[in-house]
Amino acid sequence: MRDFLNNEWLSINTATLRKQWTLPQIIEGCVRHGIPAISPWRDQVAECGLAVAKSLVRETGIKLSGYCRGGMFPAVDQAGLTAALEDNYRAVDEACELGSPCLVLVVGGLPGALQGWAAHRDIGLSRAQVTDGIARLLEYARPRKMPLAIEPLHPMYAADRACVNTLEQALDICDVLDPANSGALGVVADIYHVWWDPKLQAQIQRAGARRLLAFHVCDWLAPTNDLLLDRGMMGDGVIEIRKIRGWMEAAGYAGFSEVEIFSARNWWQRPADEVLTTCKERHLTVV
Amino acid sequence: MRDFLNNEWLSINTATLRKQWTLPQIIEGCVRHGIPAISPWRDQVAECGLAVAKSLVRETGIKLSGYCRGGMFPAVDQAGLTAALEDNYRAVDEACELGSPCLVLVVGGLPGALQGWAAHRDIGLSRAQVTDGIARLLEYARPRKMPLAIEPLHPMYAADRACVNTLEQALDICDVLDPANSGALGVVADIYHVWWDPKLQAQIQRAGARRLLAFHVCDWLAPTNDLLLDRGMMGDGVIEIRKIRGWMEAAGYAGFSEVEIFSARNWWQRPADEVLTTCKERHLTVV
Repeated sequence: MRDFLNNEWLSINTATLRKQWTLPQIIEGCVRHGIPAISPWRDQVAECGLAVAKSLVRETGIKLSGYCRGGMFPAVDQAGLTAALEDNYRAVDEACELGSPCLVLVVGGLPGALQGWAAHRDIGLSRAQVTDGIARLLEYARPRKMPLAIEPLHPMYAADRACVNTLEQALDICDVLDPANSGALGVVADIYHVWWDPKLQAQIQRAGARRLLAFHVCDWLAPTNDLLLDRGMMGDGVIEIRKIRGWMEAAGYAGFSEVEIFSARNWWQRPADEVLTTCKERHLTVV
Repeated sequence: MRDFLNNEWLSINTATLRKQWTLPQIIEGCVRHGIPAISPWRDQVAECGLAVAKSLVRETGIKLSGYCRGGMFPAVDQAGLTAALEDNYRAVDEACELGSPCLVLVVGGLPGALQGWAAHRDIGLSRAQVTDGIARLLEYARPRKMPLAIEPLHPMYAADRACVNTLEQALDICDVLDPANSGALGVVADIYHVWWDPKLQAQIQRAGARRLLAFHVCDWLAPTNDLLLDRGMMGDGVIEIRKIRGWMEAAGYAGFSEVEIFSARNWWQRPADEVLTTCKERHLTVV
């Protein structure tokens, strides 16, 4: 297991600072803090423009640990499915343009649930649409050499954000759609979503280096006060982060630890430089 | 699959009305509404006294679909483990006294987490203590002919309430501790906790009639505003309740559908008679 003596393998998911800084500010801030990588969100890229984001990435030499996010495949009709797929093609294009190592997929749940009114309850149908959508997207992404990274979300998001909820389920999809394990399809292990899983170690091992495309860290607070916006800083919660990173590395993962914290009551309220300083310190002491 | 033409198989978990009525009032109310069964909580029994509860059950002829709850096995030291076990012995005694068909086990998570400060982060240790605790409790419960029903809780409760989080995990424990499938150890399928699981149908099938000791219903609201106290009435959320009941019955389950709703913003605020009327109506139309 790698010793983290410096922050060479630290990445900041840009959602972590979305309330304080624009993407250009985040890039400038990370460079200033000696943080080598980021994982940008599409809306933050759109805000400053893809060309500006691309030139900032090139000029600063900052690395990317991923691009957030494609997915949201399920829909109520063919037009909706097609629109979702078209949007995913654009996400692949943008990821290629920015030089991301992968496109992260948050696959979607029951159509309409995120807006507060699910169009139906058939999660099996949504799951079938997800598998089909990834299959179609893979045809587009593979020749462009953009790996797709399925991110299983915590089961509490099954209705509204992602009906892929365990690493096992995500890897089953990988086995079906990319049986050769070509590197074109893999998973994100975000500890916030998967830490509770009694099969976590086994499924990380099963995934192996080729399918472990990203590793996201934050912490699970006990108590957690909000289903979406109450993630903790590494070390402030109950997740055995270092143990899980050890499992990742034993399976061959040697990439970034990407900090992704949505925290309405805490970290989104703090000065961005303080957040980055804390991320750096916790990366060394806890991750 | 049974047609529910009346409420013969409806049970009310007494937590559903804990803000409105005492246990004697709940028993009286259920009898008045023609609801044939309840599943009482220990604290509500303690409030009126075990002898009173027992005589009310006998006099009214109301049936029990379970007794809530034993469990909470993990602790920081041997004294704590022993105290938890002793308390579980008392829960078995009470369940026997009341004539419950099983004792429901909510197994516990990281010691202290429910009080807001986890003593450690080693969920593997908690899981080992849970398996050991159930093994010890089984020695006590088996000669008393009180089946133990492990209730996997939703993964969002892994830290503070239960580190058994899927039916598969619960059934793995059953396989280890009762390989003969004697009927002394089984599971509760509470749809709120397990509805999201892509392996749900397969694990219900695996459990079979002897291990399916209870079936709890409510609904998952989208959005859900509170991790603990925002359960929905059947039909108001996104769970395919009838489909899951079909899987239960295909596996051989022929018992009660037990309504267990904790709802701070809604059903705990309504008159108890209205809640029971709604439970009866939804039981027929949705469950």
